[in-house]
Amino acid sequence: MSSTIEQSAVTVLGLGPMGRELAGAFVDAGLPTTVWNRTPGRGRDLIARGAIGAASPEEAVAASELTVVCVVNYDAVDAIVRRDAVTAALKGRTVVNLSADAPARAREAADWAAEHGIGYLDGAIMTPTVTIGTPEAVFLHSGPEELYHRHRAVLDVLGGTHTHLGPEIGRAAAYDIALLDIFWTAMAGYAHALAVARAEGITARELAPFAKGIGAILPPIFEQEAEEVDAGTFSGEDNPLTSAASSMAHIVEVSESHGIEANVMRAVEGLTRRAIGRGHGADGFVRVTELLNPR
Amino acid sequence: MSSTIEQSAVTVLGLGPMGRELAGAFVDAGLPTTVWNRTPGRGRDLIARGAIGAASPEEAVAASELTVVCVVNYDAVDAIVRRDAVTAALKGRTVVNLSADAPARAREAADWAAEHGIGYLDGAIMTPTVTIGTPEAVFLHSGPEELYHRHRAVLDVLGGTHTHLGPEIGRAAAYDIALLDIFWTAMAGYAHALAVARAEGITARELAPFAKGIGAILPPIFEQEAEEVDAGTFSGEDNPLTSAASSMAHIVEVSESHGIEANVMRAVEGLTRRAIGRGHGADGFVRVTELLNPR
Repeated sequence: MSSTIEQSAVTVLGLGPMGRELAGAFVDAGLPTTVWNRTPGRGRDLIARGAIGAASPEEAVAASELTVVCVVNYDAVDAIVRRDAVTAALKGRTVVNLSADAPARAREAADWAAEHGIGYLDGAIMTPTVTIGTPEAVFLHSGPEELYHRHRAVLDVLGGTHTHLGPEIGRAAAYDIALLDIFWTAMAGYAHALAVARAEGITARELAPFAKGIGAILPPIFEQEAEEVDAGTFSGEDNPLTSAASSMAHIVEVSESHGIEANVMRAVEGLTRRAIGRGHGADGFVRVTELLNPR
Repeated sequence: MSSTIEQSAVTVLGLGPMGRELAGAFVDAGLPTTVWNRTPGRGRDLIARGAIGAASPEEAVAASELTVVCVVNYDAVDAIVRRDAVTAALKGRTVVNLSADAPARAREAADWAAEHGIGYLDGAIMTPTVTIGTPEAVFLHSGPEELYHRHRAVLDVLGGTHTHLGPEIGRAAAYDIALLDIFWTAMAGYAHALAVARAEGITARELAPFAKGIGAILPPIFEQEAEEVDAGTFSGEDNPLTSAASSMAHIVEVSESHGIEANVMRAVEGLTRRAIGRGHGADGFVRVTELLNPR
């Protein structure tokens, strides 16, 4: 029983930078869109574009079969939806929670929803706000397949690619955590590199084209290393841990010679040297995953 | 006075994975190529392909106007070239040092070379061994412009793009350090993400396509953030430090709930929270460069 997109009204709770983009995409697609935000006034532009501003979250969720929630974390989700009036209004409707938090919180939210007769899907948005409504957006979903397919047409309005990762409700949050781990660690490496470069008289704009080059070599390496990790092989033929440790020591040394703390790289070098200490010096870098998480 | 490539003989010192690729590219291009490695036997395949095996480093460097050195670090370089017989044989010739180390070591090497009448160029290879001889290879060079142009034709045989960063001899090493800072930090993020994913029942191969997606969004972000860093603006409109800190806390929490240490992300979150504590919570992430390296 798929509802066609023309029949679908949608509610968006949370009008931060991402929530506003989501609501804007629904409005642009001509869907009756109801919006609400804890701090009033955030929906003004959306209302000018045709969204309906609700006076309360219970009024907001009552307006649509589907409610999309996008707030800072699940504490913030709970503060909105776990009030009696809102929980009651959600009965028989569906919540798609696109807020980010730990997988355990998604499981807890699903239990709460089941107890109250509320359909619950959990999701994660893996791309920046500017991608919403464009082919570049990437959404991950988990939860009951039937529920996902029922609302898929509305979700598609948000653009990009949508992947249903399976019925296990914590799955989207788990992918989100792992992928943000990559993202924020890489960004920290970039910010640190900019600081070291500046100390060496290199501007960010001078470094940027080469930094982009490093960014471009990561995806194929990620793919190749994934094969090795799953296979339990860690070929370091071209770039063994011993070479990596040598590079890392140079980075720490140069950073600290400029008075720049190198806590992140010290932690990375430490991990690398522990893997070498266990006899894996000839292996490739991803061997360190075994140290982090022994099989 | 540019030597044409046909006249050029070249010597390669150091036959690790990268040195072997460099020598192989020279051999394939038909250049008279002399090779030497501290541990004997590493040049066997190259000699079978036409390279000349030298019995000693002094014999090796005497065979060519240009010597390319690619060993683990500058201590290893010094152990080879700062012996009297080798230093004497290098007089009037040119060394291109493609080994990696701190910029200060490159400056020291250039001083030593100048004292002994040896031409000295310093360089860095920013791409994996498999890229050598292909358009994907990226080489950075620094040192005297005239010397660089004199040997450019031979270096071009190594494939890819070659960028001369200027006469300051430490410049290539400084770029190398900053770029490897990005690379190894990002790789550490990936290895950690794989460990967290595995603890959540997600295989590396399942995560990889999405990890590649994260890798793909980095280059444009690097470029945009570079502009902000140089301008001293740090717009966090779409993704303020407060949101970043919230994500980082989730990553730490989920990792540690699985018994996986999160030292790197704890260091990154700490840096982020210190920037927030200084009143920059509404700014974008690269604001942390200011904390690492105050103007």
